[in-house]
Amino acid sequence: MSQAKKASAGTPKWVYSFGAGASEGSAAMKDLLGGKGANLAEMANLDLPVPPGFTITTDVCAAYYKNSGGLPDELRPQVDAALQVVGEATDREFGNPEKPLLVSVRSGARASMPGMMDTVLNLGLNDETVEAVARQSGDKRFAYDSYRRFIQMYSDVVLGVGHHLFEDILENYRNLNGYSLDTDLSAGDWLEIIDAYKSCVEEELGEPFPQDIHAQLWGAIAAVFGSWETARAKTYRRLHAIPDDWGTAVSIQAMVFGNMGDTSATGVAFTRNPSTGAKELYGEFLLNAQGEDVVAGIRTPQSLTEAARLEAGDDKPSLEAVMPEVFAELSEVYDKLEARYHDMQDVEFTVEEGKLWMLQTRSGKRTVNAALKIAVDMVGEGVISKEEAVERIDPNQLDTLLHPTLDPQAERTIVAVGLPASPGAAVGEIVFNPDEAEKLVAQGKSVILVRIETSPEDIHGMHAAAGILTTRGGMTSHAAVVARGMGRPCVSGAGTVHIDYDAQIMSSGGETLKKGDVITVDGTTGQVLKGEVAMVQPELTGDFATLMGWADKLRRMKVRANADTPRDAAQAREFGAEGIGLCRTEHMFFDHERILAVREMILAESEEGRRAALDKILPMQRDDFAELFEIMGALPVTIRLLDPPLHEFLPQHDEEIAQVAQALGTSAGKLKYRVGELKEFNPMLGHRGCRLAITYPEITEMQARAIFEAAADVGARAGKPVAVEVMIPLIASREEFEFLKTRIVAVADAVQEEKAARLTYQIGTMIELPRACLRAHEIAREAEFFSFGTNDLTQTAYGLSRDDSASFLGAYTARGIFEVDPFVSIDRLGVGELMEIGVRRGRETRPDIKLGICGEHAGDPGSIDFCEQVGLDYVSCSPFRLPVARLAAAQAVLRRKQAKS
Amino acid sequence: MSQAKKASAGTPKWVYSFGAGASEGSAAMKDLLGGKGANLAEMANLDLPVPPGFTITTDVCAAYYKNSGGLPDELRPQVDAALQVVGEATDREFGNPEKPLLVSVRSGARASMPGMMDTVLNLGLNDETVEAVARQSGDKRFAYDSYRRFIQMYSDVVLGVGHHLFEDILENYRNLNGYSLDTDLSAGDWLEIIDAYKSCVEEELGEPFPQDIHAQLWGAIAAVFGSWETARAKTYRRLHAIPDDWGTAVSIQAMVFGNMGDTSATGVAFTRNPSTGAKELYGEFLLNAQGEDVVAGIRTPQSLTEAARLEAGDDKPSLEAVMPEVFAELSEVYDKLEARYHDMQDVEFTVEEGKLWMLQTRSGKRTVNAALKIAVDMVGEGVISKEEAVERIDPNQLDTLLHPTLDPQAERTIVAVGLPASPGAAVGEIVFNPDEAEKLVAQGKSVILVRIETSPEDIHGMHAAAGILTTRGGMTSHAAVVARGMGRPCVSGAGTVHIDYDAQIMSSGGETLKKGDVITVDGTTGQVLKGEVAMVQPELTGDFATLMGWADKLRRMKVRANADTPRDAAQAREFGAEGIGLCRTEHMFFDHERILAVREMILAESEEGRRAALDKILPMQRDDFAELFEIMGALPVTIRLLDPPLHEFLPQHDEEIAQVAQALGTSAGKLKYRVGELKEFNPMLGHRGCRLAITYPEITEMQARAIFEAAADVGARAGKPVAVEVMIPLIASREEFEFLKTRIVAVADAVQEEKAARLTYQIGTMIELPRACLRAHEIAREAEFFSFGTNDLTQTAYGLSRDDSASFLGAYTARGIFEVDPFVSIDRLGVGELMEIGVRRGRETRPDIKLGICGEHAGDPGSIDFCEQVGLDYVSCSPFRLPVARLAAAQAVLRRKQAKS
Repeated sequence: MSQAKKASAGTPKWVYSFGAGASEGSAAMKDLLGGKGANLAEMANLDLPVPPGFTITTDVCAAYYKNSGGLPDELRPQVDAALQVVGEATDREFGNPEKPLLVSVRSGARASMPGMMDTVLNLGLNDETVEAVARQSGDKRFAYDSYRRFIQMYSDVVLGVGHHLFEDILENYRNLNGYSLDTDLSAGDWLEIIDAYKSCVEEELGEPFPQDIHAQLWGAIAAVFGSWETARAKTYRRLHAIPDDWGTAVSIQAMVFGNMGDTSATGVAFTRNPSTGAKELYGEFLLNAQGEDVVAGIRTPQSLTEAARLEAGDDKPSLEAVMPEVFAELSEVYDKLEARYHDMQDVEFTVEEGKLWMLQTRSGKRTVNAALKIAVDMVGEGVISKEEAVERIDPNQLDTLLHPTLDPQAERTIVAVGLPASPGAAVGEIVFNPDEAEKLVAQGKSVILVRIETSPEDIHGMHAAAGILTTRGGMTSHAAVVARGMGRPCVSGAGTVHIDYDAQIMSSGGETLKKGDVITVDGTTGQVLKGEVAMVQPELTGDFATLMGWADKLRRMKVRANADTPRDAAQAREFGAEGIGLCRTEHMFFDHERILAVREMILAESEEGRRAALDKILPMQRDDFAELFEIMGALPVTIRLLDPPLHEFLPQHDEEIAQVAQALGTSAGKLKYRVGELKEFNPMLGHRGCRLAITYPEITEMQARAIFEAAADVGARAGKPVAVEVMIPLIASREEFEFLKTRIVAVADAVQEEKAARLTYQIGTMIELPRACLRAHEIAREAEFFSFGTNDLTQTAYGLSRDDSASFLGAYTARGIFEVDPFVSIDRLGVGELMEIGVRRGRETRPDIKLGICGEHAGDPGSIDFCEQVGLDYVSCSPFRLPVARLAAAQAVLRRKQAKS
Repeated sequence: MSQAKKASAGTPKWVYSFGAGASEGSAAMKDLLGGKGANLAEMANLDLPVPPGFTITTDVCAAYYKNSGGLPDELRPQVDAALQVVGEATDREFGNPEKPLLVSVRSGARASMPGMMDTVLNLGLNDETVEAVARQSGDKRFAYDSYRRFIQMYSDVVLGVGHHLFEDILENYRNLNGYSLDTDLSAGDWLEIIDAYKSCVEEELGEPFPQDIHAQLWGAIAAVFGSWETARAKTYRRLHAIPDDWGTAVSIQAMVFGNMGDTSATGVAFTRNPSTGAKELYGEFLLNAQGEDVVAGIRTPQSLTEAARLEAGDDKPSLEAVMPEVFAELSEVYDKLEARYHDMQDVEFTVEEGKLWMLQTRSGKRTVNAALKIAVDMVGEGVISKEEAVERIDPNQLDTLLHPTLDPQAERTIVAVGLPASPGAAVGEIVFNPDEAEKLVAQGKSVILVRIETSPEDIHGMHAAAGILTTRGGMTSHAAVVARGMGRPCVSGAGTVHIDYDAQIMSSGGETLKKGDVITVDGTTGQVLKGEVAMVQPELTGDFATLMGWADKLRRMKVRANADTPRDAAQAREFGAEGIGLCRTEHMFFDHERILAVREMILAESEEGRRAALDKILPMQRDDFAELFEIMGALPVTIRLLDPPLHEFLPQHDEEIAQVAQALGTSAGKLKYRVGELKEFNPMLGHRGCRLAITYPEITEMQARAIFEAAADVGARAGKPVAVEVMIPLIASREEFEFLKTRIVAVADAVQEEKAARLTYQIGTMIELPRACLRAHEIAREAEFFSFGTNDLTQTAYGLSRDDSASFLGAYTARGIFEVDPFVSIDRLGVGELMEIGVRRGRETRPDIKLGICGEHAGDPGSIDFCEQVGLDYVSCSPFRLPVARLAAAQAVLRRKQAKS
């Protein structure tokens, strides 16, 4: 091994062989060989049938970019030597006019980036070697078909000649000759196509298609390294948080052919069902085809098992029926792979003239339901531990699970039925273009992206869309795989749907829908429905509950919900909330019945006027709180005092101003003047939060009274005290806090005396300003808890308005200035340091201070991990993010444990 | 001394005697005895004629407030004992019906707060003792006059019966009897007035005026302590940064009478001229009057010296002429006091039947010119050191000196002439009410406060006003003293002016002016002028230059100016700028001739369109910079790249939009849409600063090119390189800085090659966001200098918009939450800590990084002191604040030195 590691003294080892006898790599070497290369080596180590090949390491990718696109000189002899070995193992030789070796050239990064980077197949073909292939295989048609595929793929990937040019040539040829399928073309037809393709390349580039197979090889290697930096690859990395400096490896492997007639086939398969998680052979294959044909979704593939075929009602035979020996061997391969990897595998295989070859294995993408079932099952099978099971689930994926599905009772107008490619249901406007999808979503619309098929160029639109519908492709088509990964509902291969991109319409079964029409897609059943169909809330049981139970036992932090209404609170308890961490009272002020009193309060010209209006609001607020306290029982409820600037409650348009003026018995002019007077240049930094309370303490006193009266009443009825936490927003200094705390305590004292009750309460604050973090030791002298308001803290630390940042955040991410939007995941270096300062100083003066976070970061796994790191006591997020938070909090504990060990 | 410190074991010493033999206090005991008490003791120690008395310490004030207004029991015996001593020294006794002792009860805090707190004179008078006074003095009229004064003053100060009630009674009486002056009233008349006064008190309070002189005394003591917390005292403390917990002492002293006929007098005097600083006896006196009469400005007083009388053209005799022996004695007292205090003294004296008594001495308030002359003269006289001279000048006062005076060539329409009470000139709208003055100024207006006379209740209005005009009172009247202290131009005692508060008009010499009319007051000549009169810039020479020279030698930090225009730059050099620390380029964009091109650039829909418009702006920007570079020579010039959001440059109103649309050849609708599109919710946190540059790097490239081309051209012409510093605003991360630095360096390289020039430049950044402070070590890897932008840093650290804070900052200061407005003086605890972090981390990675501050704090002495403390290299302020900054920077060095020693 130590010898293999170095090709010769002083020269790094750039190339690792596999498959021809012992492999030089293993599954553990993903960083160096990429996922694909490492797993090919591992499969060879497991004695699985892997076509021999070798992997050029990710170090070469780094060197390539450091060299501005040049490959190191030492690489060539290593590649030549490795090619020699492959040739010997296959009894062929690269470029040999009699027994030519053909190879595939594929990318493979540390993390799977399906379809994001380039691949070239059938490399080694030229006008001379193609004849040898024809002679050897005895199948001219196969040889010419392979050659024309190679010309098209190589020209597209390496030479930059658009694939549509070749598709047009083929389409024309078919039409001229009255062929409807590619299989109608004879060897002679393909020869003509090959000539036309070569002419096309020469016309486009001014030079002929390269016949030198070594030039082909090095062109392909460079193209694969180059594809690491394409826009779509960068986007994918950004979405999946894959560092730019990882780079890709390149695996070069002897070709095997699934398109050598009906004893050949190619397929994609999973060791378990990636939709349901069931432990069954699952997958698809195509007879007489190359791998690309399955993934591209050009032909609809056949089932692997008889059971699956019957369930799908498919009339084409299963692999189990057509090639029973191959099927049996594949089953064994599955078992070996799961035993080795302890996880569900996604494999690619090819059958060449009855012989099975394994081309790839990787951890398979799966729906969240499948992920849960597989994790729980594998614990049951004794394959993984509970901790591993908890680590296996991507918390963000749980979100999908919690979203509503279609109401089974609702009426449905079915427009079409396709494959249930990614579960869940979504409603939105039809849009045919991914750019437009992104634009409409930015405008706040919900859209369904409708495409004939999708390609990696479309992922930004798929990410933006609520759901995806394609008319071609199977369960493992690009659309299906990507949608499942993203948690987007998807129906694929809905063949009855006809799409006219130019006219921006889709039609199916006599129904024509145009862009902007609303449809519903049900990725669980494959149905496409007209209009908006009613949804039901998901029920969470079984594997979900089991796994959450394990997570709950592992996590240290409590989880609470941000809940303003009884409905939110009930939902929160259902999803496992251990309290309310943020009840925003402003929503209560907007209620239709009370907004008039609120406006009266704002427009009052004296404290007496304000108090009169507040007296009207008091009983309503008290009822709000009483309801929440009843639902939450003895769990803590954090109520934030009024936060937004008062002008947010006032009418803005002339008509509305006139109405309100009449209702309030004032003049429209006077009201308009007051509205204008309250306008602010920078409301985010204006007269809001505790500043409102300090200028108008009577508002705080009313809210405190409503809170404490409700707490006393509910506590008395329930016979146990309500755990109420009064939270003051936007504190920057101890003096502000002290001023308000005194008043709130006075109200509590008064209510306790009036009601002869004993209240259990704490008074604390949001920490959402940089100054509050710095002065935390002073504020903590008075405050009994801190809740980090990281939305505002991010806005102030960066001087960045979330509402206004859309106009330039695009440029920031495109230029690599933001790795991740700081409003999505906590900026650990800046905002995070402020939090750390706040935590440390807060505990300095009050060691037992309760520390939490509320706001959107509290539902983001990366941010939750940071909260665990700095030692917060709880996170509080929206009810639907609670399971995400519970799981992420458990994973954060496991990560700390691993970091320590 | 150690025995005197304690009255008896376990009881603190609350009372310190003076004047009757040895004093228990001294000038060093200001903290305990207040300024007045300590100086009375000191004068007694110097054997000056001080009426005997004693001082109740500031500790009692603290106890009084801790006790919620109760005085400690141990105090009474100590006061009684001290009173006994005073009685013995004066051969009188408190309350004795034959030889009654009368006392004054005065406040006196550590720092002088002239007129802010209460005083009671003639205490000890009642129906019985007044007769003894009449008998002893042989002057019934004097006795009854003193008694009625006492009733009025005591009722007002202690009992809360408004003084206007008494004034009305007196006014009525005079009218009924046809008297025009108080001196027309006989002893019998005063007796009737006394009865009427006593009835008035009984009517108002339901109980008679207190005849018990001990009750009187304790009431007065409590009232003086209570006056520490009046609104006006609090306001004064806030304006002068005097801590609330210092408290006041109370001095009780045997009365001497300046109103015992024409051999008696009372006066206020300065050991040097407080207007010019000339070493001459200066002051005013009134024959047959009590001290209050001088200060209140009711009668216009006479000069002390013949020289001053002649200069004023006054026909009333001087003290020098009337009482030569007293005058001679006073001159000696002056010399003793200056020899003791090493500073110009402000003294109060009374002559009782030919005998001089000193009632007070303190460091005298003076104009800035006087302050400079006195400081420089005293260095010349060998009395103080240069360091002490530098410490003596209040930097804020210099501001006055730098402001324009009336252009001697300008036409003047003189409305009236009064006393030149406080130098400088001011223009503004007439306003008669101090509240209204404050309100109008808050709205951005400039006002002249016009009053018959001013009182301590008016100081908020005086502070707000640009200038002050009174129709009564002398050079030492309340208005004059306060205006000089504040640096407000003031004309006092303009007797020809008649004010009608009800009608809101003033008339003089047939001219009637109403509220809102514009006038100019010239506090240097005493003239009141109609309309706005042209001003000229001050010339700074002589003492100013001398003192600034000393300061410049002492200070460590450089001073630079914020200058956007050649005019600013020239002004800045004149005021001693050592460079430009902030040249804001946005002002250049607003220029009438180029705003159209700017708007074209903003509205362009492509980079090409923007570049075309930028090409038009480039030569203009280049000229801007070239002019600045020429003026500044080899001094560094920091140019900040475009900072404000683009929408600030666009037209806002329909009419203007239509005009601009026509000029740009676009439709008003389209333009309006774009204007709307660019609007931001929180522009302060929006698409501005480096964010503009990152989205539109072509703007930065144009600006960089204009800067470097100008630098190359000017450098070539001058034969020495221009020291240019390119400053990137609003940086939050190293990545932003790096992205832009790369582009700026590329432009510099290109210009150097094109012009075959060698540029000397640095690229640095504003540090104005909390995150930038935290990431300073990273940013400093790339940035060669930091300039702290503390305006924005304060806004973001506090989450507080300066523009919007007016609506609640009032409540904040009123409630003691802000000690000082953080936009006026750096909030050391929050913003200051961020700066410290930025400084420390910046130097970690780049030890020689240049550190400065630009923005308004850089002209605030308190903030400059902080900048010295954290070790900045320079401060950059507005040109007119430069001398302030130079002096404050020197003082900061001295303060550090003292703190160390």
